[in-house]
Order: sequence, then C-alpha cells, then structure tokens
Amino acid sequence: MTQYFEDFAVGQVFGTARKRVDAAEIKSFAADYDPQPFHLDEEAARGSFFKGLAASGWHTAALSMRLLVDGEFKPAGGILGGGGELLWTLPVRPGDELHVESEILELRASQSRPHLGIVKVRNTTFNQRNEAVQSFTASLLVPLRAPPR
Amino acid sequence: MTQYFEDFAVGQVFGTARKRVDAAEIKSFAADYDPQPFHLDEEAARGSFFKGLAASGWHTAALSMRLLVDGEFKPAGGILGGGGELLWTLPVRPGDELHVESEILELRASQSRPHLGIVKVRNTTFNQRNEAVQSFTASLLVPLRAPPR
Repeated sequence: MTQYFEDFAVGQVFGTARKRVDAAEIKSFAADYDPQPFHLDEEAARGSFFKGLAASGWHTAALSMRLLVDGEFKPAGGILGGGGELLWTLPVRPGDELHVESEILELRASQSRPHLGIVKVRNTTFNQRNEAVQSFTASLLVPLRAPPR
Repeated sequence: MTQYFEDFAVGQVFGTARKRVDAAEIKSFAADYDPQPFHLDEEAARGSFFKGLAASGWHTAALSMRLLVDGEFKPAGGILGGGGELLWTLPVRPGDELHVESEILELRASQSRPHLGIVKVRNTTFNQRNEAVQSFTASLLVPLRAPPR
C-alpha cells in the first residue's frame, strides 16, 4: 500500500476516515498547548472573536495530521516535510466531524538528494458540512522506487 | 500588560520562558497525533530520515504556542490569526530546551474591520544552542485601543 514517488500523479486525491471532536477534547488540548479563554470555556468564548467555544488551530492541525497518518496517503518513508502554508478558514466547534482530503499539486525531483522526489500536496480539512476549516500546503520528501544510479 | 495595536512597532521582539522536551513527551504526543515510527521509537528512528528520535513538527508547533501564550507577547483579545507560513528548520530532539522569539514585521489597518489592526509577526522557536527549529510567520488580528469613530 506504500506509495513511492513514481506512484503519484498531479490531481490525485487521497482521503481519510472521519473524526468527531468534542468540547472536552477541545479544552484538554487547549489547557496543554493553547490556554486562551476562547479555547477553554464556553462562557468566556461567547464574548470573544469566535462567539463560542472553538478548537485551537494547532489542535485542528494535530487532528488533521492524525487523520492523514491513518489515511490513504501513505508515502514510503512516512509523511515528511519541512513545513508549508497553513490556513485556518473556519473555527472548529464541539461536535464537528473532520476529515482530510490530500490533493497532489506538483511533482519534482530533488536536486540535492537524487533518491528523493518532492511532492507538493494540499491537505484540506473539512467539517461535516464539507466546509473547509483548514488547509496545509506542504512539500514532502518521498523516496523513489528506482533511484537513478 | 495587554498590548493594543497602537502599542506595537516594527522591529519589536518579545520573548518567552524556556521549556525542556523529553522523549516520553515526544512519544506521547506522537501516539495521539502523529504516530509515525521516527516520532515513537528510538530504534525505528535510527534507520529513518531523522537518524534518531525527533518530535513531530506539530508537537513543536503546539509547544511553541504554549510558550507564546505564556510569554511577553500579549495582544489584547488574545493571539488570534488565520494561519501563516510554517517552517521546520531542524528536528527537535529529546532533551532540547525551546524558547520563542516573536518579531513584529509589519503593521497595517484592517480594511473590513476598522476596530482591528493586522500585526504580522515571525515567531521563531530556538533550541538551547540558539538554532532555529521552527518559524511561523502569521498575520494576527489585534484590537485598536482607540478605534476610529
């Protein structure tokens, strides 16, 4: 099931399972990593920018990564990148059910490492209404099945 | 101590405390959110791209956010952004001690929301050798102390 660089084509889309997020989980992640009132407490959140409890963007990102790792996109050597453009487009609310779609945008050789290719992929996280809540566009390093000698 | 849009100037730098990361924490975050062998197991990590146990980039991002929230950068209304450019420049290893420096890059008015300004800030996470392990450049929404009428 593992995919090598040669197995990818621009336009391919890979899916994931779905994961429901509840208020307890939103508050628990926030208590550890992003303890701001709008991620911790319904009452305080009501008067904030979010007008209600919302997950930390970093929680959405971490949950999206978990979905990805367990999903259909399985590059050989793992999902390995040096970063990318991260956008939070809508708040994630208690009860939302998330899934991720990964679309291959670009494929190119690595100049410095001939046994690796670079796969540019946009990972969009959707809620149960198919609204995008996050996108993360990353360039990943993926091994070639048949590296040039 | 809270900072309004008018309190910021390009070039200001805000610091944070320091946080040590250990192997147990790296594995525990990875088990929840990024269960790939190089984040879970020293032996498996040795044969990987990382050549040793490394924290998930999302763990580094979450730890950086926690340092930020507890740090000197305290925009009124919270640290609130729609995303940005996230770069992981070096692996985070067990025993590393992280801190974040936030540099104000740009200040501008929000066209759509006159009571808010946009603060572009680069948050760089450093290890104990002052090597950058992550940078996250984000545009944040920050309330004006004295909004135009």
